Formats: sequence, C-alpha cells, structure tokens
Amino acid sequence: MRWARFEQNGSPSYGIVEGDEIIPVRGSPFVGWERTATKLPLAAVKLLVPVVPPTFYAAGLNYPEHVREVAEKVGLKPALPTQADAGYRANNALIAHGESIVIPRDATDLVQYEGELVVVIGRECKHLTRENALSAVLGYTIGNDVSERSWQKGDRTLWRAKNTDTFKPMGPWIETNVNLPELITKVRLNGKELIAFPTNSMVFGVVDFLVAMTKYLTLYPGDVVWMGTEGATANMKHGDVCEIEISSIGTLRNPVVRES
Amino acid sequence: MRWARFEQNGSPSYGIVEGDEIIPVRGSPFVGWERTATKLPLAAVKLLVPVVPPTFYAAGLNYPEHVREVAEKVGLKPALPTQADAGYRANNALIAHGESIVIPRDATDLVQYEGELVVVIGRECKHLTRENALSAVLGYTIGNDVSERSWQKGDRTLWRAKNTDTFKPMGPWIETNVNLPELITKVRLNGKELIAFPTNSMVFGVVDFLVAMTKYLTLYPGDVVWMGTEGATANMKHGDVCEIEISSIGTLRNPVVRES
Repeated sequence: MRWARFEQNGSPSYGIVEGDEIIPVRGSPFVGWERTATKLPLAAVKLLVPVVPPTFYAAGLNYPEHVREVAEKVGLKPALPTQADAGYRANNALIAHGESIVIPRDATDLVQYEGELVVVIGRECKHLTRENALSAVLGYTIGNDVSERSWQKGDRTLWRAKNTDTFKPMGPWIETNVNLPELITKVRLNGKELIAFPTNSMVFGVVDFLVAMTKYLTLYPGDVVWMGTEGATANMKHGDVCEIEISSIGTLRNPVVRES
Repeated sequence: MRWARFEQNGSPSYGIVEGDEIIPVRGSPFVGWERTATKLPLAAVKLLVPVVPPTFYAAGLNYPEHVREVAEKVGLKPALPTQADAGYRANNALIAHGESIVIPRDATDLVQYEGELVVVIGRECKHLTRENALSAVLGYTIGNDVSERSWQKGDRTLWRAKNTDTFKPMGPWIETNVNLPELITKVRLNGKELIAFPTNSMVFGVVDFLVAMTKYLTLYPGDVVWMGTEGATANMKHGDVCEIEISSIGTLRNPVVRES
C-alpha cells in the first residue's frame, strides 16, 4: 500500500495511491483512517512531504564505500562505525517531491546528493527486539540528504551543511510493502545514472538501528530514520534535476536552483 | 507574562500564570488566544512541557568555564567555539517540571545536570538582524540538559548521552518579560547550591545564534534553542532532586530515579 500526503483545499490530507489515482482518507495511517468515495488523478494533486516527523533521525555514515570516500576527502583513515549511533536532521529543511533544492548564495560548488532509504515508524514503541522491530515500521520512503561539503568539514555541527532550508527532500510517498533485501537504490543527475547499490547493504541495518535506539528511547508514530547512502557523491548545480529511485518504492525528483 | 501548558480534561491547554493561579486560554500564544473566564489554582494542575518544538536546537558548548571543564575531562586542550553552530536535541527526551529523570540500568554514575536558558521562538522568521532578532522570541524557559558522560565521550553522536527518554526536563513555563543581562542561573542538588552564574555570559548570545541560524534556516513558532551551561557539573543519583532556577523565570525541579 502507498500512502501519500497531499494538499486538499489548502490543508494536508492523507490518501492511498493506486496506479495513477489517489483515494483521500479521513484520518491518517498513524491514528486510524477510512477511505472516502473520492478518487483524484495523482498528476493533479500537490504532494507534500509524506510525514513531518516528531523526531528526525539519521544513521549518518552507514555504507562501507561511502565511509571510505568521505575519509579520503578529509584526509583521514576510513573507520567503519562500530555501533548504531543515530544522529539528527531538522524539519525546517524538508521539501516534497518536485520542490526545488535551493543552494544558498555563499555555498561552495560542493553541494551533493545522498540517496537514502527512509524508515517511517508506525506506532509508539520501546525495547524492540530483533524479532518484532519491523512490526513498528509503517513503511518506507526516499530521502536526499543534500550536503554542503565545505560546511560539513568546517562547522562544529551539521546544522547548515545538512539542514539549510530545502536540503532534505523526502518522498514521494510511503510504501508499506517492500522486501528490504531486494531493493536497489539508483541516483540520476539530469537523467544520467551515477550510482546503483543494494539498498540493504548497510553497515547496520534497519533492525539493528531500531533495536539499538529503542533500548534508550521511545519512537513515536511518524518518526523517521534516514539510513545513510553508499559510494561517492557528485556536485549538483543550478538547473540540474536530481532523482533518487528505490525499487518498489518510487522516485524522488527535485530540481536544483542557486539563490541569485 | 507567563505561559504555562497544562493538562485540562486529558488534553494539553495553554494558560496564563498569575500569582498562584492559572487562567486557561482558547488557542495558544503561537496561533492567537483569548482568556477564558476560568481561574484554576496553579498547585492543582499538572504542568506539561511548555512547548513540543517542531525543531529542538541546542547551542552545546557555549560558556567559557564549561568548555575548559569538558576539555579537561576528556584530556584535550580547551578550544572556545569560533562560530554559533547550533546542534540538536530530541523530543522523545522531554519531560515536564516535576517529572522524574530516569537513569537507565546500564548507565554509569556519570549522569549530570546542565542548567540552561531556553529561547522559545514566537513567529516564523528567516534572515533576522541584530536589531530585530529578539522580536522573534516569544519568551524564555529553563532546560536541564541531562548527560551521561561516558556515552558522550564514546558514542559517535549524542543520541543516548543526551537524548535518552526523560533526559530533557523543560519548564516550568515560558516567561515573556525578561532582561537577559540581569539573569542569574543557579543549580541546586537536594537543596544545596552547586553553581550560580550570569545566564547571559555566553560565548555566543541569543542574538548571535538567531542571526547566524536564520541566515540559512527558517525558525518556526515553538522552535526552542537551548543556550548551553556554565562551569563544572556533578553526578545525580537515585533519590536526588535537581533544581535549576533562573531569576525572573522560575525554578525547574525534577527528582532522579535509577531504573531498577
């Protein structure tokens, strides 16, 4: 099942995507819902970010090749993470499928995509086990963890490197029915495929993170966990279009503009 | 004016604190409000955290003595921050005035308080200037940035060191009328004063942070910025009561229990 969040009469509404139509519901997948009798053409609605999370988690470095790439760029020895330590991103930076990534005037050219699987939590939970962890997941969407590499290197935190307004595209919707080991993530810039990797080849997987995190903290409906990206990343510039595709979920597409 | 958030008929409601009474309002200080004709004894209501922020910012290291203390503990040379780089904390960890800080079973004894001024944003804003930055502030409350020092030292991020459930007491209410240069922060453990410092003697002040942050990001009504703490901090153990007082705002009081 595909859950989209979209604008209806000026307010956010949830709907179920079926083919090229969307069926609005009363309620939401998080608090309970019922179908309405309406069907809208998907192409005619404005999609919103599929959820605004109470807390926005991110795995950060979590794929072996990407760890090596990042270490090389900053002149350090690569060190794989030894435990599933979650970090944070910020809601101000979220934009929906189709909205523009805006590069600030004073950013360098090193503004890069990172294609990521996003876990969307469906219910309040603590002390998850390896056996029941995935039962707390409503579904999966796609994130682009846009990063300004010079700020990432120089600042004390990731506040502007990763959380400048518009730096967190997320969408297009939440897919509840996926088989993690089969997924492939592909990143395209202006239609050209730059990388394709098995989505699930993380250092610490979805179950690892959910079990580790909920040993100490409660996850709430709508919380998201961005799972990290693989490999090298490339610069995006004014006029580019960046697409992240994850098989059986969909494609998150965002144009890039530089502030003039 | 003092804004409290409290439980009324099982739902959160805002109210204005006047002396030892609270006047419930319709609406909230963020979206508009009007007084009701009711008055309740303050002692009879359950206070909630004064706001659940869309994004939860924290200055981190931001007072000179505290920077020296932390550096000494981890064996590094103290280095004052050179720019106002905001970090993040997480909503799962928030508890209200009077609620218990729960130390997890496997935490070390190094679970410590940090008494902090909390800035509460009142309106959506970007590109604030030094002249208009404070006009975006609704008011101020108090935070206790509880930290497990062994996790803070060893983990890749601050996820459990600072964001374990109950590690972020905030309250008791939002005071809109303060004169920052006059404030004094005091921390008491079991009634004994352990530190008192001028609240405003930060490396980067409230205006510095708001101007720096809003160069790149939009702040929203209800966002909070925790401004850091000064000096050395001490361990809290089962049975302790920690109080953070900031003059003209109030006192945030929380008991401490260790998970059995």
